[in-house]
Amino acid sequence: MAYKFTLEHVCKQSGARAGRIETTHGVIETPIFMPVGTQAAIKGGVQPRDLRDMNAQIILSNTYHLMLRPGSERIRDAGGLHKFMAWDRPILTDSGGFQVFSLSHKRKITDEGVVFRSHVDGSLHTLNAEEAIRLQENFGSDIAMAFDECPPAQADAETISRAMARTTAWLDRAIAARQRQDEVALYGIVQGGIRKELRTRHVEEICSRDGCEGFAIGGLSVGETITQMHDVCGHTASQMPQDKARYLMGVGTPLDLLVCIGHGIDQFDCVMPSRNGRHGKVFTHDGPLYIKNRFNYWDDRPLDPSCSCTVCQQFSRSYIRHLWTADEALGKQLIVMHNLAFYLQLTQGARQAIFEDRYADFSAQWQARLASARWRNLPPEPPKLDE
Amino acid sequence: MAYKFTLEHVCKQSGARAGRIETTHGVIETPIFMPVGTQAAIKGGVQPRDLRDMNAQIILSNTYHLMLRPGSERIRDAGGLHKFMAWDRPILTDSGGFQVFSLSHKRKITDEGVVFRSHVDGSLHTLNAEEAIRLQENFGSDIAMAFDECPPAQADAETISRAMARTTAWLDRAIAARQRQDEVALYGIVQGGIRKELRTRHVEEICSRDGCEGFAIGGLSVGETITQMHDVCGHTASQMPQDKARYLMGVGTPLDLLVCIGHGIDQFDCVMPSRNGRHGKVFTHDGPLYIKNRFNYWDDRPLDPSCSCTVCQQFSRSYIRHLWTADEALGKQLIVMHNLAFYLQLTQGARQAIFEDRYADFSAQWQARLASARWRNLPPEPPKLDE
Repeated sequence: MAYKFTLEHVCKQSGARAGRIETTHGVIETPIFMPVGTQAAIKGGVQPRDLRDMNAQIILSNTYHLMLRPGSERIRDAGGLHKFMAWDRPILTDSGGFQVFSLSHKRKITDEGVVFRSHVDGSLHTLNAEEAIRLQENFGSDIAMAFDECPPAQADAETISRAMARTTAWLDRAIAARQRQDEVALYGIVQGGIRKELRTRHVEEICSRDGCEGFAIGGLSVGETITQMHDVCGHTASQMPQDKARYLMGVGTPLDLLVCIGHGIDQFDCVMPSRNGRHGKVFTHDGPLYIKNRFNYWDDRPLDPSCSCTVCQQFSRSYIRHLWTADEALGKQLIVMHNLAFYLQLTQGARQAIFEDRYADFSAQWQARLASARWRNLPPEPPKLDE
Repeated sequence: MAYKFTLEHVCKQSGARAGRIETTHGVIETPIFMPVGTQAAIKGGVQPRDLRDMNAQIILSNTYHLMLRPGSERIRDAGGLHKFMAWDRPILTDSGGFQVFSLSHKRKITDEGVVFRSHVDGSLHTLNAEEAIRLQENFGSDIAMAFDECPPAQADAETISRAMARTTAWLDRAIAARQRQDEVALYGIVQGGIRKELRTRHVEEICSRDGCEGFAIGGLSVGETITQMHDVCGHTASQMPQDKARYLMGVGTPLDLLVCIGHGIDQFDCVMPSRNGRHGKVFTHDGPLYIKNRFNYWDDRPLDPSCSCTVCQQFSRSYIRHLWTADEALGKQLIVMHNLAFYLQLTQGARQAIFEDRYADFSAQWQARLASARWRNLPPEPPKLDE
């Protein structure tokens, strides 16, 4: 098995962990943020080279989208997902389950799996534990996710319990279906909604399976409050095995990352930096910046003066606002690139702080600065930039 | 004056010229294609770094667009156009005249200049010989174009003559208005429609002005036939001074470049590689490729197997078609990048052939291969790629 997780250090000031995941496509240093390339590309027009430059170590791609377009056989025949998209570093793929439940039409879920119609062309498809493994092995993912059922946050205990039972049974089927264990690692997913007793029970079920290389926390960021999410994440992570990677799925804001790294999470993914970027929202060390804001017209400073990314080294707010106003594709692209680099700088900084046993301080300082939000309430006149 | 044109070689097999233009922002080796960055950015999301990688030596930007958004004072105050858009190599700007005539609303042209309403917000603006110089000096362009009047191809002799007279008078005013001669070179523009006697007359008028560093041929590619265009270009270029750069404005297809380089043209610009690219049309050595074509689904070859650009080194037709179908911004971006690199490879290859006195052969070979058009009439079934 090419995949190997090593826990390198636990911060003495917090529960934060620094680790190292080896794969056939290189090493991932955790904690890490994984940019989302839903359809085998980061939205907004980010090239593999841009990702390497911002020190992205692993990206995520979505099985649901890829199975519909261009299809897993096409990707397999093209030499696998890495070659297809010209990304030679690790790739994690989800199982397709989450998006079947959120995007597809006329889906029917049974214990066997799910039958659904494509949101693209209405064609009929089946997805289940075995098929999710087959698809991800066709892609040649470095890390595959087991097929799970993710109920909404407001679901009742019975619904959540049934989803847990299915998720456990599907994990066993996924483990049994694996054919490329040597290259494609498998993570099981812990469900349980926001009920701690259910989370505890499901951690015991899922993490007792020794056919998995790592474990994920699913079913969060699906409608619960931020406080509930942080609380349940901490509760769940604390009971997961120390010697396996812990991946919190689909989370979150910079604040979420700071809190959940403190709870011992190793891997994150979220569409927020790319999606918000495409809508003109810039993440900065001092809180959000909205590129459309007319103050930016005169502002020759970078998007985030504290950022070291290639965008902030070259371009000004004024220029990027001009691109935005003029509807130039480069505007969205540069903001998405900066946002992703911002997230990666956050996890990189966290990793360093963990090794230096000062993660609690690091997290508190970041949170305080983010919350200062200097940009939220600027006066309605051009700022005096020479002050 | 930082600008200096040196004629390095005239091909013994043709009239094609190799030259060298020095500017404060570096050297341009001619013949050269200049990618168009209309609004201070190459459309499709091409970064300055991408342009450097494809060996772009000079780009063009449009005064009409920049004067409206973000305005020349903003660009001047940001440190000039180079700094604003993070492009440190030479920039040529047009005078704004052509687009005032094609894009603005309610324009009124007099001998004084033109008054028009912005196509963006309806605001009222004035553009004339002096203002065009002032704007381009604010941008800090390496090469500024004189304000001219460009009548349509089907205009009658009287209209064309009047436009020529205005263009000459405006050139004299432009020369008199220059304040930054040391950094910002000026090219005068030869008009005359498709009437050779008018072209001859106007070359004599324009090229006798010694306040210009170079000369351009305007008023072509505005509705005449391809044959007429090539013919008039050859006629005009042959009468222009040997020791000044010759720029054919807004032209053209790969074929146009091949023919007009043979007529002694040094500089070209055209939106075709970027605009067609954004519509899914790929330029290849073997004629056009339409990315939407379903054959590309199975085709793991690069866009153009004979191309050395970064896109063709990394990505397949199958992947780029997938991006196109999935509406991913990266798809357009990669095609535009390839198309621009294709044009630049053409002018680079031409330059080498000129030095080796085999430009006529080079041009004939390219033209024959382009015309073979292997891609135009593929059968409606997946091609057998292992043949």
